Amino acid sequence: MSPDARIAVDAMGGDEGLAVMLAGVAHARRRFDGMRFFLVGDEERIRAGLANHPNLTAASEIVHAPDVVASDAKPSQALRRAKTTSMGVAIDLVKQGRAAAAVSSGNTGALMAMAKLSLRTMPGIDRPALAAMLPSLGETDTVMLDLGANTECDAKNLVQFAVMGAAWARTTLDLASPRVALLNIGTEDMKGTDIIREAAALLRAADHLPLTFAGFIEGDRISRGHVDVVVCDGFSGNIALKTAEGTARFVADLLKRAFSSSIRSKVGFLISKPATQLLRDHLDPNNHNGAVFLGLNGLVVKSHGGATEVGVAHAIGVAAKMVRDDLTRRITDDLAHFERQAAA
Amino acid sequence: MSPDARIAVDAMGGDEGLAVMLAGVAHARRRFDGMRFFLVGDEERIRAGLANHPNLTAASEIVHAPDVVASDAKPSQALRRAKTTSMGVAIDLVKQGRAAAAVSSGNTGALMAMAKLSLRTMPGIDRPALAAMLPSLGETDTVMLDLGANTECDAKNLVQFAVMGAAWARTTLDLASPRVALLNIGTEDMKGTDIIREAAALLRAADHLPLTFAGFIEGDRISRGHVDVVVCDGFSGNIALKTAEGTARFVADLLKRAFSSSIRSKVGFLISKPATQLLRDHLDPNNHNGAVFLGLNGLVVKSHGGATEVGVAHAIGVAAKMVRDDLTRRITDDLAHFERQAAA
Repeated sequence: MSPDARIAVDAMGGDEGLAVMLAGVAHARRRFDGMRFFLVGDEERIRAGLANHPNLTAASEIVHAPDVVASDAKPSQALRRAKTTSMGVAIDLVKQGRAAAAVSSGNTGALMAMAKLSLRTMPGIDRPALAAMLPSLGETDTVMLDLGANTECDAKNLVQFAVMGAAWARTTLDLASPRVALLNIGTEDMKGTDIIREAAALLRAADHLPLTFAGFIEGDRISRGHVDVVVCDGFSGNIALKTAEGTARFVADLLKRAFSSSIRSKVGFLISKPATQLLRDHLDPNNHNGAVFLGLNGLVVKSHGGATEVGVAHAIGVAAKMVRDDLTRRITDDLAHFERQAAA
Repeated sequence: MSPDARIAVDAMGGDEGLAVMLAGVAHARRRFDGMRFFLVGDEERIRAGLANHPNLTAASEIVHAPDVVASDAKPSQALRRAKTTSMGVAIDLVKQGRAAAAVSSGNTGALMAMAKLSLRTMPGIDRPALAAMLPSLGETDTVMLDLGANTECDAKNLVQFAVMGAAWARTTLDLASPRVALLNIGTEDMKGTDIIREAAALLRAADHLPLTFAGFIEGDRISRGHVDVVVCDGFSGNIALKTAEGTARFVADLLKRAFSSSIRSKVGFLISKPATQLLRDHLDPNNHNGAVFLGLNGLVVKSHGGATEVGVAHAIGVAAKMVRDDLTRRITDDLAHFERQAAA
């Protein structure tokens, strides 16, 4: 990350608002040395909030934006006010080349619409997809996309998601030909919708792509580490991601009940606390917060609306890592390289 | 359950085949007093297998079926051989009134197609849905449907699923007006597909129905116990159910790693083992195995293809409970009652 690189943070977005966003930025500033920011939003309120975070003053520049995108705003409504909202201004800083990435905890649909309109998609990509690295039992994390940006997708969209997801896995996980699978309700060829079967046929035929198509994968295998990239439409991906989060929390709650069910188990809990604390940290969604819109000419990271200070800091860390890895250029080059190969 | 009632078990279905099915039936026979069976499949092989399960001999009648539905058979293929397959013959025993329920671990699509053709749907129901009671943090379990029988659904199908799921909750969970929610990728009105929004509008308008429409629910809330019935198409439902299973297993694996990470945590584990063992049992999918096709004029229970002996026994237990509760008649009466109210 160049010493001048700054990350533009939509300071107003998210369910918890300004205080949590600023605390998250301050947290990230403590963790990542030399990181600098644009804080975008209501100038007066941000300046007042900064009083609690002296470590941010020198590292931050406030960029005023009078409006906020409501959490229930339609993307079309949000687009009309792109120039005056904290979300729109943060994205615009990326477009102008002043910021190396934008981070927002705001409305996903609005963020997607604004980012797409402002930054445009990479050559050969019709729609950006929301992607994240998820923890797995394998040697590396697993890329999953789309996680909610595109409610409905056609087969061509899914193939493009596969190509983008594989490019991310190649550039970040150091895999020459990542194993890519389509999320489905069975592994047999006839399973799923026409769209998924068509996408499978296209991927099976596309042997020029630098990925290994691994067919269909079911929901119970996502985190097994058997594939590197899991591809799905944004509806299924969001259902799967949130169900996984909910189940992890459900199990943690049951574990808590189990440990407090008897004196004996309470003692066992106290003794094994360091180990279970590690597990708790590992499962806390805040420690995996930060999904990226793949396929745009610029970096935009979506932080969960309900993220805590730690979660916001993690999303900023994801953005910083991508800036450092020069992800947008590398994925663009990667895609262009294989476009040329395919054309040759 | 009348002393003459028998459950027809497709003894040939499932990934593990005859041995596990028979072991599961024998297990169920030990757990549920007076339970009796038709064992459907290759007579010679079943007779040979029964040598290992002397407790089944008096409680079972073998019904020969020469064919088996392959796990990758298309429903249309399976339908053509309905009369000669173990699955088809088991369902036919229900149709004839000789069996009170059928249980199969075979191909879901084939089971759905055969059951629908043979038993027909209840009045007012176009398509049966695969439903299960899932564990929750609430006071009762949560009904969820469809779990994979109908890959694509229209709004009317979803409304019928809501009505059937509510009827099950009323008859089994003793709730007068169960809270019903549609699975979606957000809770705001504009979220999701046109189909889901249309289903929500229909449910909101249907104030004669004996259910409380609770709007949309996201994947992370399914097991919180805030609603009694979660409704979705079979694709989303299957993704959610399997992702939940996979995540529970993932967390259990991480917990195992955490407990074996140091001598201290190993000691803690040994002390709290009774508590964690309870949790492990609670999370084992075999202890929740058995989904029912709601909306048919007869009981058909789907057991997971990979179910163990314990899982098969649990699915048979689910069938037995529904027979005892006279579920088909009660749901039919419940639906007819509110049809009449709506017409009045």
